[in-house]
Amino acid sequence: MIKGVTKAGLGNVGTIEQYIASASRYGFGAVDCSGKELEDWIAQEGLEHASSYLQEHQVRIGTIGLSAEWRQSEDKFREGLTRLTQDAAAAAALGCQSCTTYILPSTDSNAAHFMALATRRLRVCADILEAYGIRLGLEFVGPHHLRSKWANPFIWDMSSTLDWIDTINKGNVGLLFDAYHWYTISGTKEDILKLNASQIVHAHINDAKAVPISEVLDNDRLYPGEGVIPLTDFLQGLQAIGYKGVISQEILMPQPVTAPAEELFAKSQLAFQKVYAAAGLE
Amino acid sequence: MIKGVTKAGLGNVGTIEQYIASASRYGFGAVDCSGKELEDWIAQEGLEHASSYLQEHQVRIGTIGLSAEWRQSEDKFREGLTRLTQDAAAAAALGCQSCTTYILPSTDSNAAHFMALATRRLRVCADILEAYGIRLGLEFVGPHHLRSKWANPFIWDMSSTLDWIDTINKGNVGLLFDAYHWYTISGTKEDILKLNASQIVHAHINDAKAVPISEVLDNDRLYPGEGVIPLTDFLQGLQAIGYKGVISQEILMPQPVTAPAEELFAKSQLAFQKVYAAAGLE
Amino acid sequence: MIKGVTKAGLGNVGTIEQYIASASRYGFGAVDCSGKELEDWIAQEGLEHASSYLQEHQVRIGTIGLSAEWRQSEDKFREGLTRLTQDAAAAAALGCQSCTTYILPSTDSNAAHFMALATRRLRVCADILEAYGIRLGLEFVGPHHLRSKWANPFIWDMSSTLDWIDTINKGNVGLLFDAYHWYTISGTKEDILKLNASQIVHAHINDAKAVPISEVLDNDRLYPGEGVIPLTDFLQGLQAIGYKGVISQEILMPQPVTAPAEELFAKSQLAFQKVYAAAGLE
Amino acid sequence: MIKGVTKAGLGNVGTIEQYIASASRYGFGAVDCSGKELEDWIAQEGLEHASSYLQEHQVRIGTIGLSAEWRQSEDKFREGLTRLTQDAAAAAALGCQSCTTYILPSTDSNAAHFMALATRRLRVCADILEAYGIRLGLEFVGPHHLRSKWANPFIWDMSSTLDWIDTINKGNVGLLFDAYHWYTISGTKEDILKLNASQIVHAHINDAKAVPISEVLDNDRLYPGEGVIPLTDFLQGLQAIGYKGVISQEILMPQPVTAPAEELFAKSQLAFQKVYAAAGLE
Repeated sequence: MIKGVTKAGLGNVGTIEQYIASASRYGFGAVDCSGKELEDWIAQEGLEHASSYLQEHQVRIGTIGLSAEWRQSEDKFREGLTRLTQDAAAAAALGCQSCTTYILPSTDSNAAHFMALATRRLRVCADILEAYGIRLGLEFVGPHHLRSKWANPFIWDMSSTLDWIDTINKGNVGLLFDAYHWYTISGTKEDILKLNASQIVHAHINDAKAVPISEVLDNDRLYPGEGVIPLTDFLQGLQAIGYKGVISQEILMPQPVTAPAEELFAKSQLAFQKVYAAAGLE
Repeated sequence: MIKGVTKAGLGNVGTIEQYIASASRYGFGAVDCSGKELEDWIAQEGLEHASSYLQEHQVRIGTIGLSAEWRQSEDKFREGLTRLTQDAAAAAALGCQSCTTYILPSTDSNAAHFMALATRRLRVCADILEAYGIRLGLEFVGPHHLRSKWANPFIWDMSSTLDWIDTINKGNVGLLFDAYHWYTISGTKEDILKLNASQIVHAHINDAKAVPISEVLDNDRLYPGEGVIPLTDFLQGLQAIGYKGVISQEILMPQPVTAPAEELFAKSQLAFQKVYAAAGLE
Repeated sequence: MIKGVTKAGLGNVGTIEQYIASASRYGFGAVDCSGKELEDWIAQEGLEHASSYLQEHQVRIGTIGLSAEWRQSEDKFREGLTRLTQDAAAAAALGCQSCTTYILPSTDSNAAHFMALATRRLRVCADILEAYGIRLGLEFVGPHHLRSKWANPFIWDMSSTLDWIDTINKGNVGLLFDAYHWYTISGTKEDILKLNASQIVHAHINDAKAVPISEVLDNDRLYPGEGVIPLTDFLQGLQAIGYKGVISQEILMPQPVTAPAEELFAKSQLAFQKVYAAAGLE
Repeated sequence: MIKGVTKAGLGNVGTIEQYIASASRYGFGAVDCSGKELEDWIAQEGLEHASSYLQEHQVRIGTIGLSAEWRQSEDKFREGLTRLTQDAAAAAALGCQSCTTYILPSTDSNAAHFMALATRRLRVCADILEAYGIRLGLEFVGPHHLRSKWANPFIWDMSSTLDWIDTINKGNVGLLFDAYHWYTISGTKEDILKLNASQIVHAHINDAKAVPISEVLDNDRLYPGEGVIPLTDFLQGLQAIGYKGVISQEILMPQPVTAPAEELFAKSQLAFQKVYAAAGLE
């Protein structure tokens, strides 16, 4: 399993090259970013340079976010398809095989109608991504407050998400498995052990404050090891099922973090070391 | 457009052969029934006899109901697949190319999760039916009382149903277009004119009591011409878009009707004549 | 049925606006062109201007060609997907709902393997086009010399093409029905009458020299009415099944035609008038 | 990886219970059989008895064959769908999650057309099997003589088969990976290492005579360890990628084998022990 970072929790990481260099320096093997950043990087420096840069730093691109807007109108979705092909081309050119998106657990739309629209739109996205050898990971979102933030319940648990993946009917769709969401849906180690490693496209790691699970807020996370999420179960579970992909840190916070990126990278490195050691890994 | 009947509104129609003979006698060109009835008929009388009987009476099988239970558990759904293949084989053997099912507009399940499950199940059904050359028609159900009969809203209007059909992603899925439901979703003639005839797999005709649309009850229908549904718009709309399929009468009633089938067939024949004449058809 | 033109047979038609204006002047209601031309036109003149221009001239865009290269390597195919989304966006913006591609009847690849690859690629294309409300028409290619031009037979008849469309499993895929290919596969009027209008996305009209069918060359066509194709059967067949789309003239020739476009437009107008009159149309 | 047997190479194995008991006695953890056998067994002895019998003997059902005839006419295919649902129901009831079929490497049909038909039919089969939680494994068939036994080449190598699986577009389709076929397409250990364990639904083991690869006959196999197939590479490759499924012995022979089943089971047990030991397994 490869340790990775997202920008959430690292402050201002600078250019893509600074981001990669820092990740490398602090022992990370992957960075998550946007397809646009990769496209711009390739356009500016050339594909050969970008590829070599990643190779020299022993860093891979963990995942890109799904930029196509599938949650709103058909026009808005359609407008994002050209961008999606460009994101996918850039990601594939740099060896990235993963693209992820989050599922908000409630919606102001009629939930059934929105599910029908979303299913079709995500299937088109998956079809396009598949042409570039990229898998699509759907992230169920657990925090209870989001289940009633919008008018109608959508889905938030792993089981419903897996059913949805079956319905989307594309072999390249799986889960973005985030510890915060596994925790807030009261997930257990057994839930992870029931999964097949191939069902997990990407993973996120973080920690949660010691408040009742129903009060845990989505954008108020802690660094791994600072909170109460059973990360030993999380990590051992993923290891046991043979997951060999990336586990990226994602620390959403209410205010932008002000500390310098170097400091936050160092903090993150220690956080990973702490929880990996506790889980008997590495 | 072929005039047809369902058993709803005809009382006790007797055996399948009596049903067909009566339909023929009263000027109908199609009867709707179950796949099981057709299978039993073929088993008892032989396929050649059954085919000839239909041909001699100039009656076709309009549609069979989708017997697979897609609204409940996965086990229950799965148990119905063998029956579905047998229904489809019998229907196809007798030249029937249509299978229909209704969509309840609310559900006690989480609506999004149920939509995901239903989409997959209906796609499997459509795939199986397609192997037999049969199209699947989904019937949106409009009466307002059913929208809140179960805990969570599902879908009930034509537009959402068409979106759902796109999501199911099988070319052999379309609408079962029922006048009662078109009326109770406040459908207009323009709504019909926007459709492509190929989007309609089967149609139902009936009439509604003169009560506010929001109070119209699903199981309290009238015979065509007895009520307030703008059947001229309905019939002219279907005609104008080139629909050449079956329009079957379906009169759901709160109590089983007691009059003899003969009387009800005669009543139905007159009902069709009245509304067809009013629409300038035939 | 709307009379249309492709550039094949019209010489140098000038800019897109000159092309449209000429088409309009000579009684045509549609022009076929490339998605790139439309994108450039919109970029230069603005969408509102382009839309109005089409409206004022009472000309629609009949179809655009499928620019994604699905017949070669996976890399080449993938490279064409961004272009495809841009083509589709431009076409959809101008009300065009059709995109077409031709099927070469032989291949140097293993025919089964190529069929598997092509099926997947065309399904992705259809999925992308569907997001823009565009249908994909596949053109079977009949001339016998092309069946052995490459090493292995692929498909060339209507029946196999319809089977392939079923396999691609997208409701927005149908036929590009070309008179030259219908003629060279020895198609009959009955073959057309068996079709559903919704199975035809676009049509082409032309004529063939009076040589044995097996010797008819793909790139040596005549203007409608100059040859021996039973165009009365062709046109009456399409009319009878209710086809309401575009029939565009496509005259592939061994040498580029040198006459001025005006002259060729006039010739084409007369050609259409002749064969339409002979078929009792218009 | 679980050692299993097919009937090919075991002579007359008796009833299903004798088959299972013998397999158990000789150290095998899985038996492959037909869905019909399982359905009959459940009908005669009851599901509870059958389940317990398997559990007591520590034997699972490895796989059932795909009984639907997808290689011939549409009618013949359709006729097999009811049987398929019954096979699947029986297999699923007994915990079997695998169904397999072989791909003949040549065909008398037009290869492209047959590929289109086969793709659709196998997708329907996969859809049906998926409803029962069963995966479909496609077996590429390598022996060179079969590539020209029928008129037109179809597909026979792993790469084309994997492309075909992508085209079938169902997440529950993978490979039936047979050592004999891997050998006769000159497969290497690297080819196995490139696979994901989840791409292999089931595996077969056997051995080949010491003749040139191009002369190896499909129905003239040897027991594992008796021939020249690099079974150490085969087994180590599967182990290395984390394949945890069944590897069943399949010894097709020109004449029915006459030795008693007991003797052949013992021979098979020794054969597995020999090649597993050589590969450093178990």
